[in-house]
Amino acid sequence: MTTEAKSSPRERLLEAAAMLTYRDGVGIGVDALCKAAGVSKRSMYQLFESKDELLAASLEERASAYVTTLLPPADDNRSPRQRILHVFDQLASQAGAPDFQGCRYLVVQIELKDQGHPASRVARQVKENLTGFFRAEAERGGASDPDLLARQMILVFDGASARAGIKADMPTGLVTPTVTTLLDAASMR
Amino acid sequence: MTTEAKSSPRERLLEAAAMLTYRDGVGIGVDALCKAAGVSKRSMYQLFESKDELLAASLEERASAYVTTLLPPADDNRSPRQRILHVFDQLASQAGAPDFQGCRYLVVQIELKDQGHPASRVARQVKENLTGFFRAEAERGGASDPDLLARQMILVFDGASARAGIKADMPTGLVTPTVTTLLDAASMR
Repeated sequence: MTTEAKSSPRERLLEAAAMLTYRDGVGIGVDALCKAAGVSKRSMYQLFESKDELLAASLEERASAYVTTLLPPADDNRSPRQRILHVFDQLASQAGAPDFQGCRYLVVQIELKDQGHPASRVARQVKENLTGFFRAEAERGGASDPDLLARQMILVFDGASARAGIKADMPTGLVTPTVTTLLDAASMR
Repeated sequence: MTTEAKSSPRERLLEAAAMLTYRDGVGIGVDALCKAAGVSKRSMYQLFESKDELLAASLEERASAYVTTLLPPADDNRSPRQRILHVFDQLASQAGAPDFQGCRYLVVQIELKDQGHPASRVARQVKENLTGFFRAEAERGGASDPDLLARQMILVFDGASARAGIKADMPTGLVTPTVTTLLDAASMR
């Protein structure tokens, strides 16, 4: 890693965990993580209790950047409908990257198959916050059933993200009409 | 396994691969697969070229049962709209099982992260056939844009399946209203 000389062992481990688990899956070994980070196993276990805790911390560390990238600014004066559509525009933009494998917070939960795993818990909270954004906008926009609309939005988000991640389909020409139809049906402003 | 005594080594390996990769992920080792199947590694490699080929064969073997469970009978005299809704009723029913971890044909592609893997190719074909069913019904039902509707149906299917698999949400009260709204917007009969 080019940042190796500048960043701390902790930062390098977090970066390696984020990059390698996303690229190769949660089965990536401690040896591979330490090698990529240029950190000894002994140092790793001084910084993190376990590989599970390292993975959880790497997801947590990226959560605020993830949210910032997806969500519109708090005071952008756009309508709730436009603010929701903004999230899906961002998803479409992310999905266009050649190394996109789906939303990391969905993928890690699918791979771990254990809702009690520390990394699953972090990932779940991040997605619950996104659902919370949809719900708040749905209410502000006068949706007929804000709970249902929020569930539909995160369903479309995860479905589109998963399918783009496996290269089965792309959001273009699919997600905007789908979301618009659901917003219309909920009489969203 | 209780069927060990009755079934062939090949059948036991296919069953173990299907069960253990779904439960634990594609990283499951050859030793664990052979142990669960009660088959030696030597025998396994006589029957299958590699673990990858075993996994692909186990997905292939279950494909027709998967399709039969999800799809309505060919000549059930229901409307295209009802036939599509049938698939989502079946998904809701599957998602209620305690060991449900999402559609195995989606999960395996997410985990493998390699569209060229023999198991990914099998999985992709199974899901393309499901999309093909949606598309054919969309056309029969006079959908305004059958391609778009088919993409929307498989998007909702995969999104709902993934979210139920990680216990983030359940299809109940979510999938039927979502699909109905999309069918209505497409003027589906």
